[in-house]
Amino acid sequence: MPRIEIVTNVLRANDAIASENRALMSRAGATGFNLLSAPGSGKTSMLQKTIATLSEKCAVLVGDLQTSRDAERLATDTCDAVQINTGRGCHLSAEQVQEGLRKLDLQAVRFVFIENVGNMVCPTSFDLGEHKRVALLSIPEGDDKVAKYPGLFQTADCILLTKIDLLGILDFDLKRVTDDLAQINTSAPFLQVSTKTGAGMDAWLAWLRSC
Amino acid sequence: MPRIEIVTNVLRANDAIASENRALMSRAGATGFNLLSAPGSGKTSMLQKTIATLSEKCAVLVGDLQTSRDAERLATDTCDAVQINTGRGCHLSAEQVQEGLRKLDLQAVRFVFIENVGNMVCPTSFDLGEHKRVALLSIPEGDDKVAKYPGLFQTADCILLTKIDLLGILDFDLKRVTDDLAQINTSAPFLQVSTKTGAGMDAWLAWLRSC
Repeated sequence: MPRIEIVTNVLRANDAIASENRALMSRAGATGFNLLSAPGSGKTSMLQKTIATLSEKCAVLVGDLQTSRDAERLATDTCDAVQINTGRGCHLSAEQVQEGLRKLDLQAVRFVFIENVGNMVCPTSFDLGEHKRVALLSIPEGDDKVAKYPGLFQTADCILLTKIDLLGILDFDLKRVTDDLAQINTSAPFLQVSTKTGAGMDAWLAWLRSC
Repeated sequence: MPRIEIVTNVLRANDAIASENRALMSRAGATGFNLLSAPGSGKTSMLQKTIATLSEKCAVLVGDLQTSRDAERLATDTCDAVQINTGRGCHLSAEQVQEGLRKLDLQAVRFVFIENVGNMVCPTSFDLGEHKRVALLSIPEGDDKVAKYPGLFQTADCILLTKIDLLGILDFDLKRVTDDLAQINTSAPFLQVSTKTGAGMDAWLAWLRSC
């Protein structure tokens, strides 16, 4: 079965580099977070708000097929941003992240945020060397997504329900989401947040600092 | 370069089956549409509304990693629905679509809608045998998505901007989208629709019937 062998080898090579990335950050005293979600769930907005609120020095590696718009949005005095363009690639790889990490002064950084390519499927299989994995789901996407994309939510260390200011404006059955999560992931905190109103940001920052 | 060869072979095999699918539908007098977008852009809602409004007999093939929720939402007296579960697969293949088509009485069907897995990247490379490709973008996803995922919008025969009832409620610069589209696709109609208010549905149905 050559096809399976190739996939296994690709993942094994990725995992080896991911372990190096994790060690690289750990040695420098930095904690790495891999943010995964559909396009438009609010990863960049959450990071903008997070970086602006944290007093600690941060860095972000931003994966996108094209454009450097997200990195431009995220770079501030207390945050270095590295854009990784994947071309046609549907997820970040540990190798791309390592290249990004080597551009940073990790010793000075407390939090490294890796914003993955917007995609609920492919990025799930690739360890990037993060310490913690964060899955986002936004209210406009609908309440059926946990059941439809269980892999994403199963492997998450923290689940953020974003844009909760739209709860009540859009049809969204919160109980359906919590029921579906109860089937697949009961250990990850489930935090409801809004970058617009600031709701839930304290709990999110507290969780980040606990990692 | 063995890796490139494998990818090419996979795509070539897919394209051959896609051609068969197209011929299968054409011979029966049916037109096939491949709907692509991020998760939660409103593909299923658009199809529900479309099927309920069309007097012509329809069929849908619905791709999802897990669950048969979408097929259950879409099956009606005038619409046969076939759910295709892809497991960990991030896109539909022509082979899966062919298996679905063989379950339908195509002679009786005027429109075949193929709802792809919610993903703005991977499904773009796979011809399923559709006659026309439809890309959806919803207001909540943000106005930067055309520039970020050009492949999806470049290959579309029709582009639907969905959930436009949220224009004005959410920050969304419509001009940014039309400017970005002007760079990559000027031939596809760009239709603004809302399943909630019914706005734009007439233009969408007219386009479908023109195909």
